[in-house]
Amino acid sequence: MSNYTHYFGAGPAALPLEVKQQIESDINEYQNTGVSILELSHRSDEFFQLLHEARELLRDIYSIPQHYHIVFMAGGATLQFDAVALNLAGNFKYASYLDTGFWSRKAGSLASKYVDIKYVQGLVTDTKQICCIDCSDWHVDSESAYLHITPNETIYGVEFVGVCNTNVPIVADLTSSMLMQNIDVANYGLLYAAAQKSLGIAGLSVVILRDDLLTRVSEKTPDLLRYDLHVEHHSIVNTAPVFACYVTNLMLNWIKQQGGLDVMVQQAQQRSSLLYEAIDANDKFTNNICTNNRSTINVAFDAQDQQVIKQLLNDAESQGLLGLQGHRHAGGIRASMYNGTPIKAVENLAELIRSA
Amino acid sequence: MSNYTHYFGAGPAALPLEVKQQIESDINEYQNTGVSILELSHRSDEFFQLLHEARELLRDIYSIPQHYHIVFMAGGATLQFDAVALNLAGNFKYASYLDTGFWSRKAGSLASKYVDIKYVQGLVTDTKQICCIDCSDWHVDSESAYLHITPNETIYGVEFVGVCNTNVPIVADLTSSMLMQNIDVANYGLLYAAAQKSLGIAGLSVVILRDDLLTRVSEKTPDLLRYDLHVEHHSIVNTAPVFACYVTNLMLNWIKQQGGLDVMVQQAQQRSSLLYEAIDANDKFTNNICTNNRSTINVAFDAQDQQVIKQLLNDAESQGLLGLQGHRHAGGIRASMYNGTPIKAVENLAELIRSA
Repeated sequence: MSNYTHYFGAGPAALPLEVKQQIESDINEYQNTGVSILELSHRSDEFFQLLHEARELLRDIYSIPQHYHIVFMAGGATLQFDAVALNLAGNFKYASYLDTGFWSRKAGSLASKYVDIKYVQGLVTDTKQICCIDCSDWHVDSESAYLHITPNETIYGVEFVGVCNTNVPIVADLTSSMLMQNIDVANYGLLYAAAQKSLGIAGLSVVILRDDLLTRVSEKTPDLLRYDLHVEHHSIVNTAPVFACYVTNLMLNWIKQQGGLDVMVQQAQQRSSLLYEAIDANDKFTNNICTNNRSTINVAFDAQDQQVIKQLLNDAESQGLLGLQGHRHAGGIRASMYNGTPIKAVENLAELIRSA
Repeated sequence: MSNYTHYFGAGPAALPLEVKQQIESDINEYQNTGVSILELSHRSDEFFQLLHEARELLRDIYSIPQHYHIVFMAGGATLQFDAVALNLAGNFKYASYLDTGFWSRKAGSLASKYVDIKYVQGLVTDTKQICCIDCSDWHVDSESAYLHITPNETIYGVEFVGVCNTNVPIVADLTSSMLMQNIDVANYGLLYAAAQKSLGIAGLSVVILRDDLLTRVSEKTPDLLRYDLHVEHHSIVNTAPVFACYVTNLMLNWIKQQGGLDVMVQQAQQRSSLLYEAIDANDKFTNNICTNNRSTINVAFDAQDQQVIKQLLNDAESQGLLGLQGHRHAGGIRASMYNGTPIKAVENLAELIRSA
C-alpha cells in the first residue's frame, strides 16, 4: 500500500492501518478457532464474546449509563430512518424533525409513512451565511413522540454539538459523528449511526437507546427492525453480520487505545482547523457556514472559478489524495475526515489549498 | 491455516481457500484504486462494475431470464421474511406457505403481520419416516398472493427439488440451497437467499424476482426493504454493504470457474452420498428422512446412544472437523456442506462415521 495515498470520501471511509493489518491476519485464522473470521459462526462463544466486548467498549468510551441498551443491526442509517419511527412513534400524534439539511429531511420523509411529521427550523440562512439555530430556540411540539436531530450534516458540512432539555426524547443520527463529538448520552433518548464512517464498514448500524423507549414498538414492525428483539437476543436475533461487527469491535479497541473520545474529538478539531485556516487564507475559496457550525468532520468548500476546483482535484489526486469531489448535490470540494484519517494526509491537502 | 481443519457449521459457512486469499490481497489494495476493498466507496465506478459483474454472473450461472431482476440487499433471510410479504401481498386475501419444517413456519409467522397466512401441508410424517409431499398434491388456495416454499430445511436435513405449475407465483427461500440445486428460475416468481452459506458472508441477501411482481408493494414498506427501489437504483439505494457484495462476487466467479451450477450440484450429491452411505452402513446411527428427500446440503443424523454422538463429536474435533453439533432444536449431529466444502473433509468425516 502506498504511504502517500489517502481516501477522503464521505464513507465507506478510511480505516486505520493497524485495523486493516489485524483484519488480514484474522482472515487467515481467528483466535485459534481454526476458522477465518469470515467463517465464524454467529452462535459461537467467540462471537458472543466479541459483541460483549464491543458493547462494553462503547459503553466505556461514551460513558453510556446502565439504563441504555446497545444494539448492533444489519443495514445502514437509511433503514434506521424507518426503524426509528416504527419503534418510537407509538400512539403519538406527531414526530418532530429538526431541519438542518438534506439528511434530516430525508429521515423525516421516510418516517412520514408511519406518523405525521412536524419539521422544526434548525438553520438560519441569509444571503451570506448558514448558521444553526441554538437549541434554546427550537420550537418543538410537546405532543411529539420524539425530536429527531442530525448533529452533523455531511453534504455542506454543518455541525452543532449538544442539546437543551426538552420534554420529548431526542433521537440523534450520529452516522457521521459518532465518537467524534463530545456529547452526553444521558441527554438523548436514542442515538444511532451506520458504522462505515467512524466505526467500521458498511452494512451495520449501532443503536444506543434508553430502556423506557422499548415499549412503544408498532406491531407491524419487521422483526429484524425491532429494537426490543435485538435487546432481548443481545443483537443475535438471526445470523448477525459477523464480519461487520468484528470490524466495529476492532475500531472501538483502536479508539480506546488512541486515548478514547477526548482524543478523537481533539484530532477532529485539529484536522478541520488545518483545512479551514488554509481555505480562509486563500481568497479563491469560499465556505459560508457560521464559524461555530463549521463541521469538524466534513469540510466542504467551493470557489468562484470552477477551474480552480478542477485544478485542486487534479493536484490532489496526483499526490494520492482521493475522494475529494463534493457531494453531487453541492459540487465543489469536500474532505470527509473520520477517525481513521491520518493528520499527514490533511497537512498535505492544506498545503495544496494554500498554494492553489 | 491448518490443512486439516474444516468447519461444518450451518452458516456462516466455509469459504474456498482461493476466495480467502483474494480477499487478503484486496484488503491491502483493491484493483489499483489506492484503497482497501474495506474502504471502497459505494458510489465508485469500481463498485458499480463489481455489482454489474455479480448480476451478470448470477444470470449466467442460473440461466435467469431477462424479465427477472437481481437485487442485493443488506440483512439476512429473516429480514426477507417480512420483505416478501410487504412487497408481494398487495391486496390479496391470503398468502400460502408450504409447511416443511421450522424455517417455512418461521417465514409464515413473520409474514402474518401483514396478510392472512394459509399453511399448505408439505410433509408426511409417520412414526418411521419424514417425506415431502409431491408438488402435484399441494393444496394451494387460488386467491393467494403467492406460495412460499423452503426447498431445503437445514435443521433436520429435508430437501425437495423442483415445483409444479401453479396459478400463484412461487416464492422460494434458497438461503441454504442457492446455486446448489438444479432449478428452473422461470418456474418461480421470486427467489431469495442470505449470502452466508453458499454465496459469501453474513449481512447480505440476494433476491431474484419477476418484473411483474414489482407493482404490488405496500406503501408502508420501509424504503430499504422495497424491491422496486433496489431495482431502480441497481442495488445502490443507500450505502450498500460493499464488502459483503464483493465477497459474493468472488464466490460467483469461483463457482463459474469450477464449472458452474452442474458441478456444484454434482459435488453436493457426491459429498452427501459419502455421508449417507456411511450412516446407513453403521447401525448405531439413524436418519429417518425419505431417501428422495434427504438433503444433499445438510446431513443430519442421530444415534440411540447419546454417548456415541458425544464420542463422534470429540473424535471429529480432534481431527479438525468442527461445527458438527446438531441444531439446538434437533440435537444429534449435522454436517452442513455448502459450496465451499472440500471433499477431503467429507471423506474424513465419513471414515469416522463408519468406524464409530
